[in-house]
Amino acid sequence: MTTMRRWDLSGFGRGSLQLKQVPVPEPGPGQVLVKAAAAALNYRDTLVIEHGMGLALDFPFTPASDLAGTVAAIGDGVTRFRPGDRVITTFFPGWVDGRSAGSAKTVDATTLGGAHQGVLAEYVALPEEWFVAAPRSLDLAEASTLPCAGLTAWFALVERGQLRAGQSVLVQGTGGVALFGLQIAKAHGAEVFVTSASEDKRERARALGADHAIDRDGWVEAVYRLTADRGIDHILELVGGAHLAKALEAVAVDGRVSVIGVIEGYDLSAAAMNLLLKSATVQGIRVGHRRALEDLVRAVDVMKLKPVIDRHYTLEEVPAALNHLDRGPFGKIVITFD
Amino acid sequence: MTTMRRWDLSGFGRGSLQLKQVPVPEPGPGQVLVKAAAAALNYRDTLVIEHGMGLALDFPFTPASDLAGTVAAIGDGVTRFRPGDRVITTFFPGWVDGRSAGSAKTVDATTLGGAHQGVLAEYVALPEEWFVAAPRSLDLAEASTLPCAGLTAWFALVERGQLRAGQSVLVQGTGGVALFGLQIAKAHGAEVFVTSASEDKRERARALGADHAIDRDGWVEAVYRLTADRGIDHILELVGGAHLAKALEAVAVDGRVSVIGVIEGYDLSAAAMNLLLKSATVQGIRVGHRRALEDLVRAVDVMKLKPVIDRHYTLEEVPAALNHLDRGPFGKIVITFD
Amino acid sequence: MTTMRRWDLSGFGRGSLQLKQVPVPEPGPGQVLVKAAAAALNYRDTLVIEHGMGLALDFPFTPASDLAGTVAAIGDGVTRFRPGDRVITTFFPGWVDGRSAGSAKTVDATTLGGAHQGVLAEYVALPEEWFVAAPRSLDLAEASTLPCAGLTAWFALVERGQLRAGQSVLVQGTGGVALFGLQIAKAHGAEVFVTSASEDKRERARALGADHAIDRDGWVEAVYRLTADRGIDHILELVGGAHLAKALEAVAVDGRVSVIGVIEGYDLSAAAMNLLLKSATVQGIRVGHRRALEDLVRAVDVMKLKPVIDRHYTLEEVPAALNHLDRGPFGKIVITFD
Amino acid sequence: MTTMRRWDLSGFGRGSLQLKQVPVPEPGPGQVLVKAAAAALNYRDTLVIEHGMGLALDFPFTPASDLAGTVAAIGDGVTRFRPGDRVITTFFPGWVDGRSAGSAKTVDATTLGGAHQGVLAEYVALPEEWFVAAPRSLDLAEASTLPCAGLTAWFALVERGQLRAGQSVLVQGTGGVALFGLQIAKAHGAEVFVTSASEDKRERARALGADHAIDRDGWVEAVYRLTADRGIDHILELVGGAHLAKALEAVAVDGRVSVIGVIEGYDLSAAAMNLLLKSATVQGIRVGHRRALEDLVRAVDVMKLKPVIDRHYTLEEVPAALNHLDRGPFGKIVITFD
Repeated sequence: MTTMRRWDLSGFGRGSLQLKQVPVPEPGPGQVLVKAAAAALNYRDTLVIEHGMGLALDFPFTPASDLAGTVAAIGDGVTRFRPGDRVITTFFPGWVDGRSAGSAKTVDATTLGGAHQGVLAEYVALPEEWFVAAPRSLDLAEASTLPCAGLTAWFALVERGQLRAGQSVLVQGTGGVALFGLQIAKAHGAEVFVTSASEDKRERARALGADHAIDRDGWVEAVYRLTADRGIDHILELVGGAHLAKALEAVAVDGRVSVIGVIEGYDLSAAAMNLLLKSATVQGIRVGHRRALEDLVRAVDVMKLKPVIDRHYTLEEVPAALNHLDRGPFGKIVITFD
Repeated sequence: MTTMRRWDLSGFGRGSLQLKQVPVPEPGPGQVLVKAAAAALNYRDTLVIEHGMGLALDFPFTPASDLAGTVAAIGDGVTRFRPGDRVITTFFPGWVDGRSAGSAKTVDATTLGGAHQGVLAEYVALPEEWFVAAPRSLDLAEASTLPCAGLTAWFALVERGQLRAGQSVLVQGTGGVALFGLQIAKAHGAEVFVTSASEDKRERARALGADHAIDRDGWVEAVYRLTADRGIDHILELVGGAHLAKALEAVAVDGRVSVIGVIEGYDLSAAAMNLLLKSATVQGIRVGHRRALEDLVRAVDVMKLKPVIDRHYTLEEVPAALNHLDRGPFGKIVITFD
Repeated sequence: MTTMRRWDLSGFGRGSLQLKQVPVPEPGPGQVLVKAAAAALNYRDTLVIEHGMGLALDFPFTPASDLAGTVAAIGDGVTRFRPGDRVITTFFPGWVDGRSAGSAKTVDATTLGGAHQGVLAEYVALPEEWFVAAPRSLDLAEASTLPCAGLTAWFALVERGQLRAGQSVLVQGTGGVALFGLQIAKAHGAEVFVTSASEDKRERARALGADHAIDRDGWVEAVYRLTADRGIDHILELVGGAHLAKALEAVAVDGRVSVIGVIEGYDLSAAAMNLLLKSATVQGIRVGHRRALEDLVRAVDVMKLKPVIDRHYTLEEVPAALNHLDRGPFGKIVITFD
Repeated sequence: MTTMRRWDLSGFGRGSLQLKQVPVPEPGPGQVLVKAAAAALNYRDTLVIEHGMGLALDFPFTPASDLAGTVAAIGDGVTRFRPGDRVITTFFPGWVDGRSAGSAKTVDATTLGGAHQGVLAEYVALPEEWFVAAPRSLDLAEASTLPCAGLTAWFALVERGQLRAGQSVLVQGTGGVALFGLQIAKAHGAEVFVTSASEDKRERARALGADHAIDRDGWVEAVYRLTADRGIDHILELVGGAHLAKALEAVAVDGRVSVIGVIEGYDLSAAAMNLLLKSATVQGIRVGHRRALEDLVRAVDVMKLKPVIDRHYTLEEVPAALNHLDRGPFGKIVITFD
């Protein structure tokens, strides 16, 4: 095998995506060559393809960040992995633990499928430090959903949120991060609320263990009613813009709102009094670091958590998969190789 | 002594304030009678006097929350204090530790000088649980500044913020909370930034130990320059409204903005990307609980912290003291009871 | 109903226990009268009966601390409860949240069934602050097991231990605290290890969800084998004495040993190198505070946790129940009233 | 300059130390060549020289871990440093943040001057990841004291201990870690207690800011007296063995004992009741990670902390410096190069 297929973007826009035949890369010193089994797509990938999210991409550019596969070969000096190991990528290759890189003025944007080339290819050769062992209890399609969506929910609820049994958690919608939030929260003994405009999706959320699946209209009042006014301890705010105000109405005293998504806008606004008088915390969540991904992998094996994949697509079907992302999947969209 | 003077509000507005001669109260079971030595005024007191801040006050209403004095007599069953003890009030009488009362829908507003009658009187008789021993190292005028302004800064930086030496702290302006923030941060070995529009006040802030006192215009750029773009770990956001956006520009990666003041508006707004990409925390701070006030009292004695009092007024001069508050004092305004 | 039955101790030793007919108490101001439904016994109760654990008991003395019942009447000024409310006691009546009372030299010993009279009576009249609402999902016999055994395990693992999914937890034996530890840890998504000398009890522990139930002999080596040498993140050390050394052999890097029980001795000893080189934490756990008990109550309802009761006894059968405690029950021993 | 001097151990024991002339090393890819300015010695170095502390040293072996110097040249791919940068070593080269390496069974021993060759040489060539920028406010002799003694005290009090103003801190003796503990605690606004058998050393500790310097005999009773029985919030336990029992007598309710030193023995013992009834924490401290060293460096610059150096020795005088260590210096012993 000397050539492979890889999706390349020649410029911004989905029309510029091409599936090319290119040489299989060689692992350099400290690198591993990974044969891809599956790649999970994120909404962020559609934004990078459209306009780069402010990054000056290096064309031809390969999108996507979340890959699961098997180590096919290792370069000189590699010690963390051996051929045959099942691995997943990390979203921020340089963020191992603790504080991330970057400054107040210039934040760290060195992500896979962003400042770094992405992973929509049959093989990738990357530093061994950029990978984590996949969970033993998941197949590689499932494992591919962890680096971004799984870790984001885990980082918000567990690493930063110190979630404990008996607390209430609310996730907005039924996308990838939301359903991971639901499952992680249930596995910690929390009471879980899901909002959705679709009764069908609410029903499926209940089947996954949600204690309460409520309509998006009037969700704050529903929360008051269902909690006897106590409110929600942890809210995953996935909508953005002025919707933050709603989250601060629903949050409990000393509660926490993790701001993750900005679908409805980049300008947050909210009433100060809800923030002040409830001593609430609003925290920006930006995926997470490698150590937390390793914690999540171990937890997935113990919790027996099965990621929710709405649909699998083949490598050729990436354009259809992106269209599916636009429509809002229930859980994750995964590309499976061969 | 059977009568005393007390400021009463017969209705909203400063014009309705009257200094009356009334009976000295008797301490009931579990209560202590405290002879006032000093009361510190807060900007919030001017708002309560003007419009009650949304509370339905019980007229005649006595304003103010922060009192220092000496126990004159004790009621049945009192065990925490004895006559002669020097004490200060707590702002939220019912909040001893941990989570405050209230729900997501109806927050706890049972503060002194709010839902409860206030303390601008020569004697008060209140439950012993509502007081804390005053610091040994302060006179009672100084001690009167702790329950609200001192505790707010302490709660934001230490109790919630886990401030440590070497971190950077920025306070906005030179009011009571800001100067406590400055002094507490210096006593923890932090690098302190103060913003002010007045060079005179900046000079006085430097004299108090501020490492950097910078103009309010262009303060974010000044922070970038002075920190080599690293930004600020803890910001006490005392302005409110759209100014939160500035704080999120200046905050460091993993930094924290404590939202305390809303002088410029109750509608917060900010760019989501600064929150997200820097994993910043925004937290509402609402004074604090009794245990933290006890911690602050001990710390004041050890740190040898001397609160900054801009000016003392007599009990008759309360109207002039309120006018001074309007103009923005440098530190605290204190009423001393001869 | 004007009289009731109550167990009284006329002096130290079980032989001094008598079931007496005494007047039903009246609730004073701030007190509630609770009609007992069940009382859970603890190993500590046998020690108090034998020798008072160093306390100078006030004879006649009623033992036991853990009661569940229904509010029968309320005294003046009671606001937290109404007649008909289902409640449980708190072990340390004065410890509401945060730091407990006491000093370095003289620790706080004001517990129910210790410095305070205990609860083995058909009615008790105690301050409303000494009770917490019982979980809705438990009957009162189950609820009676929470104040001491349930809270101890929760306080060690959750309140102090910040347990999270994917971590490993080991409990020693199958007594009340151990089985609560097992159940709470499983409800948080942890991997649970139980040690026991009895294959029958190991089998029952597995049925309760334990991932690994191992023999007490050679348990450290079994842990190494089952964790690929990684060790245990949270150990509930229920044996005491030199057994702490074993726990420090088995604990993971950065792991935590909660010292709870001292069955095998009051003199702890261990190798410093295991403590130092693994940066391990050893923490004394002394039941817990009221706020944590309220958290546990909410968690029990959400987790659907059912306490394990080995056997119920009637009020007359207290001596037999104490004998059962000596033999080491599987879970809790509960006295049920009529 | 092609040759340099280096201390080599040909076998265990100080008699086997030789100052040799050897080639200056070349920095390989990713390495920096550092010209030594100063090396601080630790008591641990004397143990490694005597018997290796259980490690199978690779002879000829160069001892010591704490070096400060200037980057003389850089290898391929180096990005963190440039020639001329002032740097200090890290004690655990592989421990960047979070949890350290190693397992429950086999702890990580990969330290400089231990499993790795040490730094008592005029030049060292080591991976750039093994260095941290030196504080701007210290000369290189002072900076050399941070990697081990400074970081140990910081890690115990600040990183793990979350020290805050107003708390009490006790350090045992006046060695390097103890005096760093004293200075760091004072810079955080803590009340500091030092024990020493020498009135001269107590006087010098007071001059450094200790609030109370007390005799080693009867120190627990002195603590009770000086704190009105409250006890100590943070104790740096530097003696070891049965002395832990004393620390647990003196510790405050909810207090913390950081076990660091084992001069008097490797077998810890203490009364369980002090641990249990005071909910005390005992934590092993093993220097610390690189991120904490970076935090300490920043804090040193802000706090204006000046490490206490008892005496400087030249490179030839290493044997005399080791003898000084045996006698117990006041603060640190530093080797200065030319």
